[in-house]
Amino acid sequence: MAHRVVVVGAGFAGLHVVLGLKGAGCEIVLIDQRNHHLFQPLLYQVATTLLATSDVAWPIRRILSGRQDVTTLLAKVVEVDRPGRAVVLEDGRRVPFDTLVVASGARHAYFGNDQWEADAPGLKTLEDATTIRRRLLLAFERAEMAEDEAERRAQLTFVLIGAGPTGVELAGIIAELARHVLPGEFRRIDTRQSRILLVEAGDRVLAAFRPELSEYAERALGERGVEVMKGRPVTEVTSAGVKIGDEVVPARTVIWGAGVQASPARDWLEAEGDKAGRVLVEPDLTLPGDPSVFVLGDTAHVESEGRMVPGIAPAAKQQGRHAARVIRARLAGKPAPGPFRYRHMGNQATIGRNAAVIELGRYSLTGRLAWWAWGIAHIYFLVSTRSRLMVATSWLWSFASGQNSARLITQKETLRPKA
Amino acid sequence: MAHRVVVVGAGFAGLHVVLGLKGAGCEIVLIDQRNHHLFQPLLYQVATTLLATSDVAWPIRRILSGRQDVTTLLAKVVEVDRPGRAVVLEDGRRVPFDTLVVASGARHAYFGNDQWEADAPGLKTLEDATTIRRRLLLAFERAEMAEDEAERRAQLTFVLIGAGPTGVELAGIIAELARHVLPGEFRRIDTRQSRILLVEAGDRVLAAFRPELSEYAERALGERGVEVMKGRPVTEVTSAGVKIGDEVVPARTVIWGAGVQASPARDWLEAEGDKAGRVLVEPDLTLPGDPSVFVLGDTAHVESEGRMVPGIAPAAKQQGRHAARVIRARLAGKPAPGPFRYRHMGNQATIGRNAAVIELGRYSLTGRLAWWAWGIAHIYFLVSTRSRLMVATSWLWSFASGQNSARLITQKETLRPKA
Repeated sequence: MAHRVVVVGAGFAGLHVVLGLKGAGCEIVLIDQRNHHLFQPLLYQVATTLLATSDVAWPIRRILSGRQDVTTLLAKVVEVDRPGRAVVLEDGRRVPFDTLVVASGARHAYFGNDQWEADAPGLKTLEDATTIRRRLLLAFERAEMAEDEAERRAQLTFVLIGAGPTGVELAGIIAELARHVLPGEFRRIDTRQSRILLVEAGDRVLAAFRPELSEYAERALGERGVEVMKGRPVTEVTSAGVKIGDEVVPARTVIWGAGVQASPARDWLEAEGDKAGRVLVEPDLTLPGDPSVFVLGDTAHVESEGRMVPGIAPAAKQQGRHAARVIRARLAGKPAPGPFRYRHMGNQATIGRNAAVIELGRYSLTGRLAWWAWGIAHIYFLVSTRSRLMVATSWLWSFASGQNSARLITQKETLRPKA
Repeated sequence: MAHRVVVVGAGFAGLHVVLGLKGAGCEIVLIDQRNHHLFQPLLYQVATTLLATSDVAWPIRRILSGRQDVTTLLAKVVEVDRPGRAVVLEDGRRVPFDTLVVASGARHAYFGNDQWEADAPGLKTLEDATTIRRRLLLAFERAEMAEDEAERRAQLTFVLIGAGPTGVELAGIIAELARHVLPGEFRRIDTRQSRILLVEAGDRVLAAFRPELSEYAERALGERGVEVMKGRPVTEVTSAGVKIGDEVVPARTVIWGAGVQASPARDWLEAEGDKAGRVLVEPDLTLPGDPSVFVLGDTAHVESEGRMVPGIAPAAKQQGRHAARVIRARLAGKPAPGPFRYRHMGNQATIGRNAAVIELGRYSLTGRLAWWAWGIAHIYFLVSTRSRLMVATSWLWSFASGQNSARLITQKETLRPKA
C-alpha cells in the first residue's frame, strides 16, 4: 500500500507540500474547511471593493484536478489521534495517515479581549473580506441617512488597529475610497471629510521594514489623509467606538490587524507552543519526538539562522516545499535534505495609488515605481492565468477610470445604526 | 420648490424612470433596500459559477453619480401614506412625495406552500444566487464524502421546478458543470452520473416561446443529459427531496423557478390586484383614482393591446421610460403622451454551449448562431463598460478553457448532510 500523507489546510504551506509531492508515489489526502485556496496578500482589496472574491480564490479541486494521487476533502478537523495515526473529522470519521502535515493557519488574536471581535473584525477569510466590505459601504450609507451630526461623524470615522502591512494597506485604500471614488455620489455628506485613523501601539508603522521605509509610508499615508497615531495602544473596543489610551473616539467601523493566534493545532498535537499558540518545531519542521508529523506556516514557530521566520506567503511556500523534500527523501531512502533555511525575499506593501514600499535585500524602492513593481509582482504570484487576466483588467480599469469594481453590499443586514 | 418624485425600487423599471427624468427639473429620491442595481437576466450565471457577483450588479449611486437632482437612499419602505403624501421607512422616517413611483419587483410564489422555500430557494437577488451556488457546490462535496449509495445519489440529484427561462437555463448549465467542468476533480464520485431533472406542470418547456422552439429546447436539454418531465406538478418539497405527482425523488438540491408574487406594494397602496398580487393600473400606468402614483414592472399588472405585458427586463424598461414621459408632460403642462404600448422585442434563452433559442418577431433562431447572438446581445445590455469587459473576458475564458470562473463556496455552513 502506498504511503499515505494527510495534509490539513490548503493555504500556501499545505498546497506547496502537495505540489512538491507530485510523482512521489504517495497517496495524499488534503483536508480544508473551505473549497478554495485563498491568495491572502490581496484579500484587503476584496475588503475595499477593488477586486471580486473570485479574483483571489480558486477551488482547491481545480488546482489539483490533474493529480490522481490527491483526494481533496471539504471537512473540519477536530482532533488528531497521534497514537492511533489518524485525523478525526467533525462528523466523527477518521482519516488514517502515515505522515501528517498540519498547516491550518492562524486567526486573529485579541490579547485576552475576545469580546472585541464582533466590533473589530479581522481579515483572514473571504467571509471576513465581504463582512468588512459590507460594513465600510454601510457606514457611508448610514452617514447619508444620519439625522444628527455626532452620529454622522461616528459613521464617517474608520479605525484601523495595528500598522502592519494589513492596517497600512487598508488605511490607504479606504482613504482613496473616501477621497476619490465616492465623492459626488452622496447628497447629504461629503465623504472627503471622513476620518481614517491608523492606530499602532508600537513606535512606527510597518515595523518589519527598514526605518526609512516606515517614515516614507507614514508620510505617504498622511498626504492621503490618514491620521497615524503611534505609541498609542487601544484599550477598549465597543460598538460605540474605540478608546485609544484615555481618548474615546466614536467610530462605527473598526478593523483589527494587530495580532494573530495560531489555529488550535497545538491542542490537537498536545505540543509545546509559543505565546501566540504556534507549535515549536525541529529544524526540519517536524514535531519534537514525532518525525512523521510536520507543522508549517502560521501554525508553526519556525526559526532559521536564529531568527523567527515571518508569517508571510513566501515563507509558508518555502516551508511547504521543504517538507515535501523531506518526505520524498524518506520515501526514497535517501539522506534528509538538512534543516529548513528561510530565504527572505523582501517585504512589500502598497499605500495607495502611486505609492508603495518594497524592500529587497539591501535595496529599497518607494513611490510610483514601487507601486507598479508591486502590482506586476502580485499578478505574477496569482495561481491561475484566468485570475491574472481578471485582476490585471480590474486594476487597469480602476487606474484608468478612478472607479472600483466590486462595491456591493451582500448578506443583508438591518440598516439601522448599530449603536 | 421643485416637484418631488419618490421612486421605490432601483430595478429596470425604477432606474429607467430616473434616467428618463434627467433634466426635467424635479427633485428625485430613489429608495432601494440594496445598494446595487441587478442585471437579473444573467443572475443564473452567478448561481452556476460562471460569473462573479460584481459582473451583474452595480452600485446605484455610481450609475447616478452625475445626477445632482437624485438622492439615493438605502432603506426599506414599509408603508405608503397616500393621504399624507409620504412614504414611510422601516426606521419610522417619512419621505414626502408629489409623485410616487412604485417599482418594487416580485418574489417567488409557492402557491400556498411557503414552507417549501427553505428547501427550494428561488433566484431573484444576489444573495439567492450565492446561496444556490453554495448548495450546488456543496452537493458535489457531500456526495464525495457520502458513505452510502442512496445518500450519494440524493446529493447528485438536482431538481429544477418550472421550465421557464430560469429553469431551462439553470438545468442546462448545471448539466455542463456536472458533465464537463467537474469530472476529473473528484476521486470517489463520477459527477457525470448526476441526475438533472427539469419538472414542469404545464405541457411544454419555455411556454412563452413558439412550439417549435420549445421542441428544440427540450431536445437540446435531453442531449445535454437533462431529464425533462412535463405535465408533472410537484406536490411536495421537503429536505429529503420532491414528490412529483406520486413519485418520490430523493434530492438534496432543489431550485424553484415556477412562479412569482409581486412585492407587498398592493397592501401599501390599498389597491386592487390580480391573483399574483400585481397592482391593476390604468393604461398610463397610474393607480386608478390617483394619477400621482405610478406602479411599474413586476409589481404591476399592465395590459397593452389587450394582452398582459410579460415580466421581463425590456418591458420594465419601457414602462419606466413611459412613466418618465408622463411625468415630464405634466410638469411642462403638455398633453399626456397617451397609453403605454408595449413593444415586444422577442424572447431568448440559452440552453448550454452552442445552444440557445431566440424569437424575434416572426423570426426564430436556434443553435450555435443563436448562442453567440444571445451572448453579444447580453454584453450590449450590461450597464457599464467595465462589466462588458469583465463578462466578455469571463465568457471567452470559459469558452476557451472549459472552466468556470467563480466556483466559490462562501457563507460557511456546516458540512453535514441536510437530511
